[in-house]
Amino acid sequence: MTASSLVGHLDRCSINTATLGYQGTLSDTIEGVARAGFGAIAPWRREVEGDDVGKIARRIRDAGLRVSGYCRSTYMPSATKAEFDASLDDNRRALRDASMINAACFVLVVGGLPGVSRDLRAARKQVEDAIGLLLIDARECGVPLALEPLHPMYAADRSCINTIEQALDLCSALDPDMAEPLGLAIDIYHVWWDPSLDVAIARAGRERRILAFHVCDWLVPTTDMLLDRGMMGDGVVDLRSIRSSVEEAGYSGAVEAEIFSRDDWWKRPVSETLAVCRERFQTAC
Amino acid sequence: MTASSLVGHLDRCSINTATLGYQGTLSDTIEGVARAGFGAIAPWRREVEGDDVGKIARRIRDAGLRVSGYCRSTYMPSATKAEFDASLDDNRRALRDASMINAACFVLVVGGLPGVSRDLRAARKQVEDAIGLLLIDARECGVPLALEPLHPMYAADRSCINTIEQALDLCSALDPDMAEPLGLAIDIYHVWWDPSLDVAIARAGRERRILAFHVCDWLVPTTDMLLDRGMMGDGVVDLRSIRSSVEEAGYSGAVEAEIFSRDDWWKRPVSETLAVCRERFQTAC
Repeated sequence: MTASSLVGHLDRCSINTATLGYQGTLSDTIEGVARAGFGAIAPWRREVEGDDVGKIARRIRDAGLRVSGYCRSTYMPSATKAEFDASLDDNRRALRDASMINAACFVLVVGGLPGVSRDLRAARKQVEDAIGLLLIDARECGVPLALEPLHPMYAADRSCINTIEQALDLCSALDPDMAEPLGLAIDIYHVWWDPSLDVAIARAGRERRILAFHVCDWLVPTTDMLLDRGMMGDGVVDLRSIRSSVEEAGYSGAVEAEIFSRDDWWKRPVSETLAVCRERFQTAC
Repeated sequence: MTASSLVGHLDRCSINTATLGYQGTLSDTIEGVARAGFGAIAPWRREVEGDDVGKIARRIRDAGLRVSGYCRSTYMPSATKAEFDASLDDNRRALRDASMINAACFVLVVGGLPGVSRDLRAARKQVEDAIGLLLIDARECGVPLALEPLHPMYAADRSCINTIEQALDLCSALDPDMAEPLGLAIDIYHVWWDPSLDVAIARAGRERRILAFHVCDWLVPTTDMLLDRGMMGDGVVDLRSIRSSVEEAGYSGAVEAEIFSRDDWWKRPVSETLAVCRERFQTAC
């Protein structure tokens, strides 16, 4: 397998703003990402909500950036109907913002077990129900939903959708004709270990579901289950091989760096992190 | 689904000695486990090797305990042929000890990526090769190999075998006729999240591969990726449902508690941990 080279193609590369540890304002971040030569950005709701979304949209456009994704959904599985409905409304509002900033997709991190539940099957059913309802809004807004399978270590508290195959099955159940704005965000951090990875990615391509592709690296040892992701090239994941599979499956969208790294990259100057991302996209991905 | 009750059936329950934090000698542990009424024990090599294995075997037998498993294999994927061979020899020696203590199985925790490798596929191939070679000794010793799929969060550094289905595929490749002493140790900590869990367990039963069944619980939050397992009932896993699936698949062997808990159970008196295990086997499993 050979991946297309990213050398000289930073226009295909995107920076998820979480990578920079939210050290500056979103305006600063937009400028920094554009100045560093990247073609896209993926902002978080915490940076957008409560601000003038139209102005943010203009700022991103004026900087010459695309939006590779908008992060992320409110968790869906809920202990009560009222909470379920509130989460749905929250996600509907976020979808409208995603549309205003012209996001390529709205990233769904769906949540784990609600309350004191031990019933993963019920949580998964709630996710399916919620996405089914959210699809109406996604169609109206023109923003596809990108369901992101999360690593199994998050099954209890962050996402009960844990493999590409499982996410694809859910998409098929809701959209057997592949006619809806529904697909996957594939993040190598969550799926790199999967013994069925190549088969799953090929299927995702055949079913035209790959909407986003995120990179970072898996560090050994990993000292924190959430906030110790590695810079591309610093860990053990065969990034190039996985990117090849994703591109052979037909994906030609942005390659987005999303690195949660509380004790390392989030402590460095934004300019340094952007410079290293720039280099590693071209040498390690 | 309904699991057979374990109330009054502590003879079916086993204590993996790691649960007690290695606070006493193995002799102390054997006596404590027997006195608490359990029917079986699962010792670790660190407690056995370098000691008089025949004497340990007699001590366990005299205490009226069975051995539900012997923990565990030396990692198999290796950066060099010499290391691969050394690991194999190590495992062969351990198999002989497993035979002497009359272990129901030798637990295979197979290892992750060797050296600086990023090639999971190659590591998995080495595991298959190593188990293929080890089967010769397993047959001679009369001790079945119990391949334990480990949680995907250990794929890099502890085990590149990460799901029941993957482990079953490996068993089928090496032993298509189901004639070899080869099967699985199913530990709920590693597999509870799997969206295919019921299907996978049913297949494991049909293919007569379930050799051991381990319980503990998944805590929320989990503060350490290795040493923060929960006591049965303290976490979010539907233990009874999974035990039902395993028993409906035909398994009638020991239910073994294996709890790595550096900051909680390992700090408590052994007698307390045993008493709580005794209660939780009967109320939470």
